Amino acid sequence: NSYNSPCAACKFLRRKCMPGCIFAPYFPPEEPHKFANVHKIFGASNVTKLLNELLPHQREDAVNSLAYEAEARVRDPVYGCVGAISYLQRQVHRLQKELDAANADLAHYGLSTSAGGTPGNVVDLVFQPQPLQS
Amino acid sequence: NSYNSPCAACKFLRRKCMPGCIFAPYFPPEEPHKFANVHKIFGASNVTKLLNELLPHQREDAVNSLAYEAEARVRDPVYGCVGAISYLQRQVHRLQKELDAANADLAHYGLSTSAGGTPGNVVDLVFQPQPLQS
Repeated sequence: NSYNSPCAACKFLRRKCMPGCIFAPYFPPEEPHKFANVHKIFGASNVTKLLNELLPHQREDAVNSLAYEAEARVRDPVYGCVGAISYLQRQVHRLQKELDAANADLAHYGLSTSAGGTPGNVVDLVFQPQPLQS
Repeated sequence: NSYNSPCAACKFLRRKCMPGCIFAPYFPPEEPHKFANVHKIFGASNVTKLLNELLPHQREDAVNSLAYEAEARVRDPVYGCVGAISYLQRQVHRLQKELDAANADLAHYGLSTSAGGTPGNVVDLVFQPQPLQS
């Protein structure tokens, strides 16, 4: 964060990167796309507000999750990373069904199952996904 | 979208809801929180831009996925809905491991497995998750 190399955010916003810049630790000049995506999707002022409301040790994870969401939204403007959530939820349901069937087969032959088994549909209760594709 | 009941977006932004308002079909006055969250996280102008770049039939899904992301970010400012992705990925890996073990048990006793079985780690290749918690 020297005067010679402004962070990617200040470079993008064409402003001087001052000591203590809230973006500098998380947007190094070598990764210009990271800030460009975050700026396009969330806006610099929303991200500044969000980071200021967090404790310093939480900010790196927050920036990385925002960058992940922003990149997903740039790649898929309709679903963004919610597309990944839907896909993963379908995969969890399919795997749970297959596992239940395999465990039922093992039980049918009097064989104990290797895993304790977890109740299905935990995900639905935790995340309350909304129906996206009607 | 009559003059008597502006959509939730125009009400929030304190502006007149004109016929053809891009927000009106997706932000009914009965759901004020939906727009409030989307506005707080993405900003009204970013959402307007995004919707204008989509085809009309894509906009409802886009708004719903934005509302889902925004609500997740309001509830968890550090991880947002990326927390759900990490959780689901761990669940997929665990279920895949348990299923592999159950199928191995069935194969060990010469029993055919009820499911064809899918190669593991497909998710990692598709979504390229970044390590969020170091």
